[in-house]
Amino acid sequence: MPSLASPLSDIAPSPLVAVQQLLRDHAHALPVGLHQGKTVFEPCARPRVWERADFGISAHEHAPPAGVPALREAFAAAASARRGATVDVDQVLVTGGATHAIGVVLRAVLAPGDEVVILSPQWLFATGLVRAAGGVPREVPVFLELCADPGFDFLGAVEQAVTDRTRAIYFNNPNNPTGFRLDEQALAGLTELAERHDLWLIADNAYENYDFSQDGFLDSAAVGRAAERTFSVHTCSKTYAMPGARVGHLVSPPGCEEALTKWSLHTLYSVSTPSQFAAYEALATPESELADRRARAYDAWRLADEYLDIPHTAVSGTLYTFLDLSALGDGERFVRSCAENGVGLAPGRVFGEHCRDWARICFTAAPPEAVRDAVQRINKVYKEAISER
Amino acid sequence: MPSLASPLSDIAPSPLVAVQQLLRDHAHALPVGLHQGKTVFEPCARPRVWERADFGISAHEHAPPAGVPALREAFAAAASARRGATVDVDQVLVTGGATHAIGVVLRAVLAPGDEVVILSPQWLFATGLVRAAGGVPREVPVFLELCADPGFDFLGAVEQAVTDRTRAIYFNNPNNPTGFRLDEQALAGLTELAERHDLWLIADNAYENYDFSQDGFLDSAAVGRAAERTFSVHTCSKTYAMPGARVGHLVSPPGCEEALTKWSLHTLYSVSTPSQFAAYEALATPESELADRRARAYDAWRLADEYLDIPHTAVSGTLYTFLDLSALGDGERFVRSCAENGVGLAPGRVFGEHCRDWARICFTAAPPEAVRDAVQRINKVYKEAISER
Repeated sequence: MPSLASPLSDIAPSPLVAVQQLLRDHAHALPVGLHQGKTVFEPCARPRVWERADFGISAHEHAPPAGVPALREAFAAAASARRGATVDVDQVLVTGGATHAIGVVLRAVLAPGDEVVILSPQWLFATGLVRAAGGVPREVPVFLELCADPGFDFLGAVEQAVTDRTRAIYFNNPNNPTGFRLDEQALAGLTELAERHDLWLIADNAYENYDFSQDGFLDSAAVGRAAERTFSVHTCSKTYAMPGARVGHLVSPPGCEEALTKWSLHTLYSVSTPSQFAAYEALATPESELADRRARAYDAWRLADEYLDIPHTAVSGTLYTFLDLSALGDGERFVRSCAENGVGLAPGRVFGEHCRDWARICFTAAPPEAVRDAVQRINKVYKEAISER
Repeated sequence: MPSLASPLSDIAPSPLVAVQQLLRDHAHALPVGLHQGKTVFEPCARPRVWERADFGISAHEHAPPAGVPALREAFAAAASARRGATVDVDQVLVTGGATHAIGVVLRAVLAPGDEVVILSPQWLFATGLVRAAGGVPREVPVFLELCADPGFDFLGAVEQAVTDRTRAIYFNNPNNPTGFRLDEQALAGLTELAERHDLWLIADNAYENYDFSQDGFLDSAAVGRAAERTFSVHTCSKTYAMPGARVGHLVSPPGCEEALTKWSLHTLYSVSTPSQFAAYEALATPESELADRRARAYDAWRLADEYLDIPHTAVSGTLYTFLDLSALGDGERFVRSCAENGVGLAPGRVFGEHCRDWARICFTAAPPEAVRDAVQRINKVYKEAISER
């Protein structure tokens, strides 16, 4: 048999599968998986048949590569309202979730060997996506430094990492896994830096509904002239609790439609029409319902914060806090011990090379009482590990 | 604004959009679009909610990257039955349709600059997918030659095109757009050629339900030792008349699961869960119903063949015949004239550089009476064009 090419050979197929397997192997009576990013909320839309006239297309028909026009228009209207500036429907591409959206952007902007600066720690598939697009990921540790010291010169750190091969900066805000939120001033600085070096910005807004700050979610493309160079990634997975639908969208600078559509077509042809209809229905979710979910996620964070006896990041958004295990000297072993006690954590290294002494918990992945019980179990594991040292 | 990378810059976003636009522009009273590949048949499954126990996962949950286990098992069982040899579930990857499947295979097997021999004419996105994966497509004209002379030495033509950079041979069988069918002897020869040069085979089986030959559809991986080197591409789009669901699957040689799953994950994460459930339901379609659709498609071919006054390929399968416009000297103009008369055809060049004097019609894209009327209209356009010469 001929051989396979290997640009992704040293990436694990899915780094959290191992945690899932550990949980299964140890078969705790009350397993609580806090390793995956999810919520216990009901999905905002469910699969169903509709009348053709309601969406301009039937479920069995394949959609245009850029997306069903009615859905693109709805996303464009939402983006216009969020930014306070008109976003044209040509700037919207419906995608098969955030993974697909980020992959399409990277394929469209990178030539082989081009570098992408990643504000780190980062969403666990970001480095793999850069490599899959032929690029070179450059993790720049900033979020843990900002958590420790809000005055940390993160722009200086980013600037130092920029080379003449750098083409883009990727960041997610609020940040998975730390829960840190870049504010308007920070985003303005990042935009200016991108302008100075003529870089694209790839803004991953997966947690837009889970920004707990007083000001609420800020669309980074609305800051300064960022819209000219920002690819804004949005997904229904977290916002509408429907990751199974695999639908999201990109809002891009004007003039990118053809390039992005071609890359989308050459990965997927088009996004599932029933998924696009589900997104269309989910968009009609009342703001009060979304605010209620945000409040419940915030309560889950407060509960985790109250019960955790392990140092962890202070959270301004997302569904996560990042546990500081540096006192133990072996973060991976802690993750294994927690799995033996029936609690799934995501090991820090999947979020950044520099995070081996950290682990992530998702505080919305189980009902509050289960999260409290799980936190008490991992507190015990932590205490025992400390006392053994 | 920074610039975009351009490996796909000279590919049209979707070559049939222009035909659609021509049809709209000319606003014929009775437009008949025969340019797209589709059927008028009802979809074999529709989006719906299900009980978690029925599929092991709920609609709103995201599926594992390789696919929902129940669906993978069902596809493995179907492949085992078709091949008369056990196909393990590890060999099955659920994909977002055939486009995604072919893209994943190409990403997994090609290094930059590697070549793929494409038996031509071919499905219209095959060359773009090779280029999107960093490869170099080599169209080898064989199907029109075989249509004209079944004794044509197509293996000699393929062998001549193989270089030390060739990694794979792509073919679809029965062939879109010609309707030609490679028989067991031809497939055996192709397999031996691939073995001799240590090449992968990428078999696009999109039209497996529309093989009109007496023997019926032959899974090319069941021929000789082809299974060791064949990636078999299947899709629900044509077989179950549900292109909107964007779901298909790959059956691969043993040992490729990890590489393929990683590439699938890094393009899409996973396939829409509701689409996977729809595929699972569609798999239960009675064979009698599928046979009935095949018979109706065959009748549609017979009708087109009977009424067409334009030279065209003899069809053993698929939903198409390819019109020979070489007597006109300008195939593109004929396509435009037909659109002015309300009939959409797919221009030959999108199926191969050497097919500029051809055009494809899909004889199942409209009800029989509409196809007959459309054929009569294009006969008239053809006759006028001939008389003008």
